[in-house]
Amino acid sequence: MGLKTKEQYIESIRALKPTAYMFGERVTNIVDNPRLRAGIEATASTYEMAQMKENKDLFITLSPLINEPVNRFTLPPSGIEDLVARVKVNRKIANYVGTCHQRCTGLDCLSTLAIVTYDIDKKYGTHYNKNFIEFLKHMQKNDLTGNAGVTDVKGDRSLGPSEQVDKDMYLHMIERRDDGIVVRGAKAHQTGSLSSHEIIVLPTRAMSKSDKDYAISFAIPSDTKGLIHVVGRSSLDMRELDGCDIGNIYYSKYCPTLIFDDVFVPWERVFMCGETEFASEMVVRFSSFHRQSHGGCKSGKIDCMIGAALTMMDYNGTAKASHLKQKVIDMIHRAETLYGCCLAASYEGKKEPSGTYFIDTVLANASKIHEGKELAEAIRLMIDACGGFVADLPSDRDFQNPEIGELLKKYLKGVETIPVENRIKMYRLAEKLAMESADTISDIHGGGSPEAHRVTIFREIDVESKKSAARRLAGIKK
Amino acid sequence: MGLKTKEQYIESIRALKPTAYMFGERVTNIVDNPRLRAGIEATASTYEMAQMKENKDLFITLSPLINEPVNRFTLPPSGIEDLVARVKVNRKIANYVGTCHQRCTGLDCLSTLAIVTYDIDKKYGTHYNKNFIEFLKHMQKNDLTGNAGVTDVKGDRSLGPSEQVDKDMYLHMIERRDDGIVVRGAKAHQTGSLSSHEIIVLPTRAMSKSDKDYAISFAIPSDTKGLIHVVGRSSLDMRELDGCDIGNIYYSKYCPTLIFDDVFVPWERVFMCGETEFASEMVVRFSSFHRQSHGGCKSGKIDCMIGAALTMMDYNGTAKASHLKQKVIDMIHRAETLYGCCLAASYEGKKEPSGTYFIDTVLANASKIHEGKELAEAIRLMIDACGGFVADLPSDRDFQNPEIGELLKKYLKGVETIPVENRIKMYRLAEKLAMESADTISDIHGGGSPEAHRVTIFREIDVESKKSAARRLAGIKK
Amino acid sequence: MGLKTKEQYIESIRALKPTAYMFGERVTNIVDNPRLRAGIEATASTYEMAQMKENKDLFITLSPLINEPVNRFTLPPSGIEDLVARVKVNRKIANYVGTCHQRCTGLDCLSTLAIVTYDIDKKYGTHYNKNFIEFLKHMQKNDLTGNAGVTDVKGDRSLGPSEQVDKDMYLHMIERRDDGIVVRGAKAHQTGSLSSHEIIVLPTRAMSKSDKDYAISFAIPSDTKGLIHVVGRSSLDMRELDGCDIGNIYYSKYCPTLIFDDVFVPWERVFMCGETEFASEMVVRFSSFHRQSHGGCKSGKIDCMIGAALTMMDYNGTAKASHLKQKVIDMIHRAETLYGCCLAASYEGKKEPSGTYFIDTVLANASKIHEGKELAEAIRLMIDACGGFVADLPSDRDFQNPEIGELLKKYLKGVETIPVENRIKMYRLAEKLAMESADTISDIHGGGSPEAHRVTIFREIDVESKKSAARRLAGIKK
Amino acid sequence: MGLKTKEQYIESIRALKPTAYMFGERVTNIVDNPRLRAGIEATASTYEMAQMKENKDLFITLSPLINEPVNRFTLPPSGIEDLVARVKVNRKIANYVGTCHQRCTGLDCLSTLAIVTYDIDKKYGTHYNKNFIEFLKHMQKNDLTGNAGVTDVKGDRSLGPSEQVDKDMYLHMIERRDDGIVVRGAKAHQTGSLSSHEIIVLPTRAMSKSDKDYAISFAIPSDTKGLIHVVGRSSLDMRELDGCDIGNIYYSKYCPTLIFDDVFVPWERVFMCGETEFASEMVVRFSSFHRQSHGGCKSGKIDCMIGAALTMMDYNGTAKASHLKQKVIDMIHRAETLYGCCLAASYEGKKEPSGTYFIDTVLANASKIHEGKELAEAIRLMIDACGGFVADLPSDRDFQNPEIGELLKKYLKGVETIPVENRIKMYRLAEKLAMESADTISDIHGGGSPEAHRVTIFREIDVESKKSAARRLAGIKK
Repeated sequence: MGLKTKEQYIESIRALKPTAYMFGERVTNIVDNPRLRAGIEATASTYEMAQMKENKDLFITLSPLINEPVNRFTLPPSGIEDLVARVKVNRKIANYVGTCHQRCTGLDCLSTLAIVTYDIDKKYGTHYNKNFIEFLKHMQKNDLTGNAGVTDVKGDRSLGPSEQVDKDMYLHMIERRDDGIVVRGAKAHQTGSLSSHEIIVLPTRAMSKSDKDYAISFAIPSDTKGLIHVVGRSSLDMRELDGCDIGNIYYSKYCPTLIFDDVFVPWERVFMCGETEFASEMVVRFSSFHRQSHGGCKSGKIDCMIGAALTMMDYNGTAKASHLKQKVIDMIHRAETLYGCCLAASYEGKKEPSGTYFIDTVLANASKIHEGKELAEAIRLMIDACGGFVADLPSDRDFQNPEIGELLKKYLKGVETIPVENRIKMYRLAEKLAMESADTISDIHGGGSPEAHRVTIFREIDVESKKSAARRLAGIKK
Repeated sequence: MGLKTKEQYIESIRALKPTAYMFGERVTNIVDNPRLRAGIEATASTYEMAQMKENKDLFITLSPLINEPVNRFTLPPSGIEDLVARVKVNRKIANYVGTCHQRCTGLDCLSTLAIVTYDIDKKYGTHYNKNFIEFLKHMQKNDLTGNAGVTDVKGDRSLGPSEQVDKDMYLHMIERRDDGIVVRGAKAHQTGSLSSHEIIVLPTRAMSKSDKDYAISFAIPSDTKGLIHVVGRSSLDMRELDGCDIGNIYYSKYCPTLIFDDVFVPWERVFMCGETEFASEMVVRFSSFHRQSHGGCKSGKIDCMIGAALTMMDYNGTAKASHLKQKVIDMIHRAETLYGCCLAASYEGKKEPSGTYFIDTVLANASKIHEGKELAEAIRLMIDACGGFVADLPSDRDFQNPEIGELLKKYLKGVETIPVENRIKMYRLAEKLAMESADTISDIHGGGSPEAHRVTIFREIDVESKKSAARRLAGIKK
Repeated sequence: MGLKTKEQYIESIRALKPTAYMFGERVTNIVDNPRLRAGIEATASTYEMAQMKENKDLFITLSPLINEPVNRFTLPPSGIEDLVARVKVNRKIANYVGTCHQRCTGLDCLSTLAIVTYDIDKKYGTHYNKNFIEFLKHMQKNDLTGNAGVTDVKGDRSLGPSEQVDKDMYLHMIERRDDGIVVRGAKAHQTGSLSSHEIIVLPTRAMSKSDKDYAISFAIPSDTKGLIHVVGRSSLDMRELDGCDIGNIYYSKYCPTLIFDDVFVPWERVFMCGETEFASEMVVRFSSFHRQSHGGCKSGKIDCMIGAALTMMDYNGTAKASHLKQKVIDMIHRAETLYGCCLAASYEGKKEPSGTYFIDTVLANASKIHEGKELAEAIRLMIDACGGFVADLPSDRDFQNPEIGELLKKYLKGVETIPVENRIKMYRLAEKLAMESADTISDIHGGGSPEAHRVTIFREIDVESKKSAARRLAGIKK
Repeated sequence: MGLKTKEQYIESIRALKPTAYMFGERVTNIVDNPRLRAGIEATASTYEMAQMKENKDLFITLSPLINEPVNRFTLPPSGIEDLVARVKVNRKIANYVGTCHQRCTGLDCLSTLAIVTYDIDKKYGTHYNKNFIEFLKHMQKNDLTGNAGVTDVKGDRSLGPSEQVDKDMYLHMIERRDDGIVVRGAKAHQTGSLSSHEIIVLPTRAMSKSDKDYAISFAIPSDTKGLIHVVGRSSLDMRELDGCDIGNIYYSKYCPTLIFDDVFVPWERVFMCGETEFASEMVVRFSSFHRQSHGGCKSGKIDCMIGAALTMMDYNGTAKASHLKQKVIDMIHRAETLYGCCLAASYEGKKEPSGTYFIDTVLANASKIHEGKELAEAIRLMIDACGGFVADLPSDRDFQNPEIGELLKKYLKGVETIPVENRIKMYRLAEKLAMESADTISDIHGGGSPEAHRVTIFREIDVESKKSAARRLAGIKK
């Protein structure tokens, strides 16, 4: 028990036996599958970095719950410092891995449940918070990774959960037993579910009274019987399987669809069951926390893209082109905007009744709205700064081919002092940063759709005070 | 001595006898000139609000220097809390006055001098910090308003100060005497100089060795002999003079050009004199502080604009139009972005050798870059939401005219339950918020030009760490 | 009869005796009122330019109706060349006057009525087209200026015309007589109504069956009994009245609210009366034509702003600053986008049953959507390139003041070779281009609200063909 | 001879024996390689569509040169109608194939050479135009596809061609023989070079006097000895090779790097050789033509994306979501802007001395600047409207897997009435439209870098007339 090393983490994942499919075939050895491994390595970096001397103070902290040092990814925030650390840790890791590290959603769930289970218990005298606290101890003591199961597949979006023709389009309880509940449904876009020890399920939207069986929350091991992980395709997935032209030589991201084919959950792992009016609170808290995580993470990813752009400019001989420098400034500005709004959301956090701290929702969503629009722009700027070979660089195998390899190396050379190999590698990284779909599209849809973030800030601000300030200045007595 | 009431402040301004001109004529009674008074009222609100029960905790704090309660506008930040308070106070006042309150630049100067005079003394063994501390005590004990004299008129921008044909295009020392120095030059865009007790002068740019006489900083009363305030025109200035169709019924803004026609400055009021390499530090510190001030202030102004837009939508019967709601969300998003980046800049501040705290420059500039672009957009959105009468509303005098007044009131009516007078007043406020040039254009040029903010963030970020992160992921060994 | 010179036009306006108010007072001498005169001069330029040798081929053409040369502003388009000429003429005039010339709306009405009166007659056997043709001959033979009366004051926007509490919030027929009809209501934002000989009224929106009395169109002289012009305020209106600090030394714009206080219209001047289903066609045609006019006009206005920015850069010594050059390019790009989309809308026009040509609606609206957003941005860029004195330049009277005039001239000097007077004048023009509300806000609200343009392009495109192309490529058989 | 059917075209490509490599291996059967075939099919659609009854009038026209009907892709424009047809044909094909059809660059070269060879001959008495006319007859008579070889690999971008350490970084003549010249170098991003019969080479930039050997233009068959095509990687390339999860079931795009390993060109195929001052004209003409092609093509591609977005909204049950409809309008607006500016560029074209017509450069570049920025935005909007499965949809092989196929089909269902297969196919198409790198990145870098388009519009507009208009209005006499 206690903090895991990177190696211990990987072995602990190896020990799990989840049901997993990829491209039509069953995958049994998860950790040695090169595509999945690249994702697992990204999550492993959260263990690895925590052990580095220069990061320890930021990544490791004492848990007041178990009174032991824990990785911040198992710690619901119990103060402003914890909220701020979430952003800084995420930026640091993203800069280190250049993609999604896939461990944030678990923490976002823990942070949410620490608040909401308490609130439900207070109203209903239930024992969800106790269940949750036990689960949290388990996570902390074993330094586990959790995966958030939030986004239901949703069927017809114009209908609510219980209005669907197929009642399983939102995850729901199909049987209530003495020892627990049986659930059915599917959750989409489960980034890193196979890199996680536990799947933590929350509802995906507000629920009406008639959606009682859909208002459920719980946690189960990722290899629980009936749980099926189907790894989705993403744009560059064959590169890792093929072991060639990978771009980011260490890390990647994958996103399964997760099917709950009549899965049993024991009562001690249930955190909500039928309290429909709290579904909305769960999803609002979770999304806000997750949008805050994104702000740190994606600013770190833009940092990488800035690094790639500047390095390519060095390699191409364009470092002094003022229009490219302007574009890099545009990238920096975007990174700092995400980061700034998220940091502010953290510093302006407030204590909830349970003792857990919650961020300022408006500021966290302001950050995410920028992400949804500006990451695509940052990518575009990086491509502009790097040049057209982001689109169509010959394969490493071409560079190794005895007939054409030397010719290619000759012609792909940029600035004289830079080895051609470096330029090729950096182009490949730029391709990965720009064109890998799983990560890119989470900029838009991660943490709820762009519209959800907008609706949130309108709901959360104090409209009346703004109106009354305007009326006073106009000389209008209400 | 001690904290001034609003009335005491106004009387203290009345007691000054500055040399002032407006529209070709000498103005002797400053405080009763309706145009200048509207600006003075805006500054007076910083005194008035500080006395309000609900604001006291935020506006008033104990000065460690004089060990008395002071208004925050005379307090260089001595901790993170002070930095954060700057942003919050500014947002609150701007929301209250709907325009520039004109007292921030003085504080930005005090904060800058608290850092830089110390640094100069440390290097040169000079006594500028002592001079400054005495001056600061004077400001605090008398709750005075300072005005920053920074932007030189600059002549030919392609030439440095000492390269100009006319050597006076940047303010400089023309004589060094036993008791002080004599200076000549002019500072532009001196918002609120006639609402201020003291003019605090800093250099406007980095200086080279040959610009020794231009590297000067000092403070003098705003009615010092030789100082000439020439109030510039702004778009709606005649409305206040005319007393009709004013829009914002209480407050406005004015910006003089300030001519230093051979002005004497005693040595005890000199804070820098010839230490050219510190000119750059002065202007960088000041602009960063001022950009931070803007972030608070302008988010508060957008709050007013949001209030005006939402109120007009109520009055017009368009409150439920989804496209207008989207536009209001776009306005909110902009306000929160400015605010978020500025808050973050504050919370991430650091202690300087002098003990004064300084903000995170990159984040403060990230906020200002948004302001320079997005305030114009917020105005456009407000106009869109309000409707075309922002452009061409008949005069209040038309509404009072016996022949056409009733007809106009009949036809200007919006929603039945809203008195037509309210709708007219709110349109007039929207016109003021959108079309008043002095305030609007400071969104673009205040705190240095948009390009200056961009250059700053590029200079301040750690380029190398970003490059090396990209190289590692690409597999490049440097 | 025949084409008027500029002087003849002005005298013909002088001969009219409209009922006009401004700032609470009756104005009887329209053409010698300096504020109104600046607008009349702008319209006069459409007469003046037509006489210039270099413009004749573009501005003057033979009317197939009266078989005489006419100014294009009285000619409904009878071919693609005519549609294209509309755009080019407008760009040319706007570049010449630097503001709205105020004659386009009349032509947009004539073009609309040439199509729609024909269509109504065809369905109902009415004689509106005959009425219109006679009116058109009158306009052409006398080279008259028409003013479009379209935008009703609208009351509560959530209600239709006949649903309003006050039934007069949309212009309507209140009496039908043997010799004509009597109408009541008010039209807002009547740019240039006092510079026009005729007011041409169209409905402002689609009408339902119950809005029969609101579905009216007609034309009357601008000094008809019962018609009251109330000139609205705009931001810089006092400058022209005061004769100082005018900026654009020749031209300006004004916008009255026009009250129809029980005005009689003879039948021969009625172009629609109760055919509710054609109200929508009228407003759609008119707005499309007007949006096309804007595309030419506003690109010409941006041309002026580009000229102002580049000249100020010459005067300031910043002509070589690459970031400012980038901003000028951004301005050029905006001008050409408006122009390009509008030209394309013209070239892709089609012949209507009446023989009149109509533009491509989608492309015309695409242009207007850009205008609604990008003019504000072009203004912002111009201010950025010019510098802060756009906000607060001292008055010309200050420059003439014997005590401070010389000092100001000394300190306002830019580049040595440029007379300071030129720099001051150019700053004043930039202020006018940026901060004059009547013109600026028409960029947003002219030709209908921004949302109206968006709704139009969605309605007009062929959605199904796009869907079916996507289905084919995806391999979906419908 | 004469117009080819689709099948004849494919067989004619099969008959060629180019030297080609892909992923480290020699490819000998080009047309049956599934990845290359998808590109060849796209080009084949230009033959197929020309035969369709509804397209004939647009695609086929009489060549004045050979007096036979030709496909427009072999016809340099000899009138405005031809220029306009270029845009319309490209939009139509792009909408049909949903990607780049790869035949436009050849036509852009032919159009350029028709102008510039004439101009060179006129100055130098050379016979390039005669060579070109013979080559053009060959292209027209055999309905051939040409491929533009323009973008040199460039080495160190801060150095000119002859300043490079390796003199081969720009294609150049290394030997001048009696019967022809021998050239060496490499051209990058040769979209569709293996789908083409002829490679037409132009210089990539302006040349100085010392770059004489680099100022060359010629055409050679794509299977000429010494010519090596190395097909680059793009993001989804393995999908076509694998035959699964293809997205666009018919078409794709590929981009080789083309190495000229000492290739012989006979004199009759040389169109420029050493006339350095014409290099700039060649590249400016070509890029302008190519930017015009893009405007048509990419608006057609956005049409597809609009179709995909709207169809997915139907399938998801979100067709009535007003915020998504707004996003679709944003997509339409972008498509029409590209199209409108390009059409205008065509209609405003002018006749060159050679008789060939050339477009308005400013308007063509205005269109391309939008493309470089707005295609990325259109993609982002499409992803937003479609939903998160663009990122991570399970593989078709998962849907066919007996263990999980039915479960996946159950959970991927959207609206009840839509077969789940259709929804899956449309998501796959959206993935292809969004994440295929070869096509996506050409939006940014195709036709020269974004900066090149900006520089062009600044160079081409009449700066002085804009300045003088501003001076006149400001009252400045030059």
